[in-house]
Amino acid sequence: MNCHPQIYEGKAKILYATDDPDILLAYFKDDATAFNAQKRGTIVGKGEINCQIAAHLFREIEAKGIATHFIDCPSAHEMRVKSVRILPIEVVVRNIAAGSLCQQTGISLGTILPQPLVEFYYKDDALGDPLLTRDRLLLMELATPEQLESLHSKALQVNTILQEFFQLCGITLVDFKIEFGVDNHNQILLADEISPDSCRLWLTGEPDPNLRVLDKDRFRRDLGNIEDAYQQVLARVLGVRT
Amino acid sequence: MNCHPQIYEGKAKILYATDDPDILLAYFKDDATAFNAQKRGTIVGKGEINCQIAAHLFREIEAKGIATHFIDCPSAHEMRVKSVRILPIEVVVRNIAAGSLCQQTGISLGTILPQPLVEFYYKDDALGDPLLTRDRLLLMELATPEQLESLHSKALQVNTILQEFFQLCGITLVDFKIEFGVDNHNQILLADEISPDSCRLWLTGEPDPNLRVLDKDRFRRDLGNIEDAYQQVLARVLGVRT
Ligand SMILES: Nc1ncnc2c1ncn2[C@@H]1O[C@H](COP(=O)(O)OP(=O)(O)O)[C@@H](O)[C@H]1O
Ligand SMILES: Nc1ncnc2c1ncn2[C@@H]1O[C@H](COP(=O)(O)OP(=O)(O)O)[C@@H](O)[C@H]1O
Ligand SMILES: [Mg+2]
Ligand SMILES: [Mg+2]
Repeated sequence: MNCHPQIYEGKAKILYATDDPDILLAYFKDDATAFNAQKRGTIVGKGEINCQIAAHLFREIEAKGIATHFIDCPSAHEMRVKSVRILPIEVVVRNIAAGSLCQQTGISLGTILPQPLVEFYYKDDALGDPLLTRDRLLLMELATPEQLESLHSKALQVNTILQEFFQLCGITLVDFKIEFGVDNHNQILLADEISPDSCRLWLTGEPDPNLRVLDKDRFRRDLGNIEDAYQQVLARVLGVRT
Repeated sequence: MNCHPQIYEGKAKILYATDDPDILLAYFKDDATAFNAQKRGTIVGKGEINCQIAAHLFREIEAKGIATHFIDCPSAHEMRVKSVRILPIEVVVRNIAAGSLCQQTGISLGTILPQPLVEFYYKDDALGDPLLTRDRLLLMELATPEQLESLHSKALQVNTILQEFFQLCGITLVDFKIEFGVDNHNQILLADEISPDSCRLWLTGEPDPNLRVLDKDRFRRDLGNIEDAYQQVLARVLGVRT
């Protein structure tokens, strides 16, 4: 039972106010959407799974020196987070070519990139989250040049941390989307979530291009066994001793 | 009558070989296409008009020190050009927001940009000519970092030359697309065409958003009087004494 006002309901989470104006409660839903919410469904247990995975990963990242919005989890599908002003930019880091990168460049699915590719997309559902160039991002004043530099460098650091962590789980980090926010002290915090909804995760060593998929692509591409895949990621994440 | 082999037929031009292997003959067609050739039509007289406009503009640009592929016009709709290896990059320079920039960013049509915006698109009809970031362009090895720097700087110089020229014509240069090629000596030449097919041109001082349009947007958006508009651009371009 939550008696605080709902601040925002998104596609995957509901944000509630708390007694502390600097703290929000994020409730993770089982709702799944894809292709800019044209495809909708439910992944049973996803809310709890994603909340637990995100909590674990935020702790890892925080321990490695990157400030995040994460505070703690009062219940299995609820996370207390520091309230921030989210920058309307989806920061994507790619280690292996997949998804829209392949569609838009003709690069083959699965191509290992010579170095991680950091990309910025405009977080705007009405416009379909379009790819941004550096010049467009600055023209639209979505971030200052200094903030942009900071996002780029933090994104690469998060990538290194996550790649190493998932490697211990026997999982290959193909790509992921993160969001950053600015707090009252103008500090940039890693926010939102990191989960199989926001990452492409492949079972390391599995050659079958469908069997290896442990992330929301199972939902996007109707590959089945979605719950099992999410559950497996959680088990592997919790099983790692770092 | 042309007895040389056709090398390539594109959407707007046919390229023929000549007796000199370093020289091609470009025949400008009346065919018009838009939206990645999903819309097709004919603009009567366009071939001659665009050939004459492009010839005039290439002479202007060449006179200001930018190397182009232009040699001369043996007839009204034919241009002799230096044969180059076209870089598969559409370089777009924008002074005023229009077209896909507005659709993808939400910036209002007609917004004067604080500085010219140079953008790169992948010239690939099958992929729909997608926007490229600098990192994607380099990852795809579409150009070297040095070539990219050169394209960027040449594009801005061409913009300054064209802006000043069209201003003398009473025409506002909203944006344009250019292509560059590399010759046998590894020199970068401005190639292809510059015409109402490849520029957005607005009649300066005309407040009506439909009446002011003197370019292919009349065709794209079914605004009528297409031939008149193209003819008017030619007359204004030829009328300038520089
Ligand atoms: N710490 C935070 N403070 C404020 N807003 C946040 C924070 N973390 C995430 N958000 C925002 O919460 C919203 C709800 O999440 P989600 O359901 O994923 O929404 P969306 O449908 O916009 O992706 C998102 O807009 C996200 O940017
Ligand atoms: N100097 C040149 N040498 C070789 N190719 C050229 C030259 N100038 C333009 N081209 C190419 O000629 C082709 C024909 O032009 P066009 O009909 O506009 O083709 P498209 O349908 O590809 O836009 C284009 O691929 C263009 O890049
Ligand atoms: Mg979200
Ligand atoms: Mg063309």
